[in-house]
Amino acid sequence: MSDMLSGDDLARRIAFVIEVDKLKGIDRRTHVFASKRRENSAEHSWHVALMAAVLHPYANEPVDLLHIIKMLLVHDIVEIDAGDTFAYADQSKKAGDEAAAASRIFGMLPQAQQAEFTALWKEFDARATPESRFANAMDRLMPALHNLYGGGGTWREHSVTRAQLESRLSPIGDGARSLWEWFEPFLDEAAARGDIAPNDDRPTA
Amino acid sequence: MSDMLSGDDLARRIAFVIEVDKLKGIDRRTHVFASKRRENSAEHSWHVALMAAVLHPYANEPVDLLHIIKMLLVHDIVEIDAGDTFAYADQSKKAGDEAAAASRIFGMLPQAQQAEFTALWKEFDARATPESRFANAMDRLMPALHNLYGGGGTWREHSVTRAQLESRLSPIGDGARSLWEWFEPFLDEAAARGDIAPNDDRPTA
Repeated sequence: MSDMLSGDDLARRIAFVIEVDKLKGIDRRTHVFASKRRENSAEHSWHVALMAAVLHPYANEPVDLLHIIKMLLVHDIVEIDAGDTFAYADQSKKAGDEAAAASRIFGMLPQAQQAEFTALWKEFDARATPESRFANAMDRLMPALHNLYGGGGTWREHSVTRAQLESRLSPIGDGARSLWEWFEPFLDEAAARGDIAPNDDRPTA
Repeated sequence: MSDMLSGDDLARRIAFVIEVDKLKGIDRRTHVFASKRRENSAEHSWHVALMAAVLHPYANEPVDLLHIIKMLLVHDIVEIDAGDTFAYADQSKKAGDEAAAASRIFGMLPQAQQAEFTALWKEFDARATPESRFANAMDRLMPALHNLYGGGGTWREHSVTRAQLESRLSPIGDGARSLWEWFEPFLDEAAARGDIAPNDDRPTA
């Protein structure tokens, strides 16, 4: 406790809180429903964290909701340095940039808190726990809803194929099978409307 | 479980998730640190929820972090209908508008989830539990940091007096005494710089 109140501990936590304000300036590809504005990663993080609180009864396995929400609150913070990478872009440079970002930004925190947030961020990416599978389901379902309710949005812009979408979105089922079973038929409707491109012969991501 | 998967339960939860996207269009008075843009209530909600995860060791009493974070994720949703009310504006119309908003928006959810979110929103306002006192501490400390690090911001714009600020910010100490003791001296510095107006003889809010 005396360490915690030394001033250095608090100063580090406050400096981190101020630093992550920059996530409000990182734009995603998806748009806010009611406007043409692209949403930023901070408001997206709020939206998926709240979505997890609303939809967690649909998780495949018993899950720790606090753990899921903390994961979703920190999962995009590395984008402050590494930027938002579109789901279908080349992934080669992404890993290194994001690791450096995690080291710098989470490294602003006192050691135990740094370790916790770094572990949450890695856990989210690895998708090896029930909580990370459900958190990823939320993070993938949300932009799919944006596209579904927003006339195709980024699917049309990037000529995304049905096979690419299946590959990107089917992990929703790893976290919440019933959500994926509910959602998948909408892809047929979107394809029929032309929001999704026909499959081609390129190998899928 | 059969009820939950009836389709109606899920349809209501998804409709709510889409509806609350509108919080991204509700602007606050405070600005994003790195730009002149006003922040919106969705990104603010992410920021205070994350801040709670970072600062909860400073709570006066043992607190349930999940409960605090859920409260902060939902605390501003009523603004979708009622708008953001500046901390020093007349509060008379606010309560009625927000109650109607809570009824409409949380009413989109299945009954148990509606009851939970409505209770969280009321608990936040009442400040009668350790969790709501800490959540309010976060919600009040955050814009104070924005003003402190942003050259006075809304304090200068609205000629806020030192007495008004003490009244608005001292509840930080009800949730986290050491945070308020750390922060309060900065008010003297801000007053010395002229960011805060001298007290006048009007009764304080």
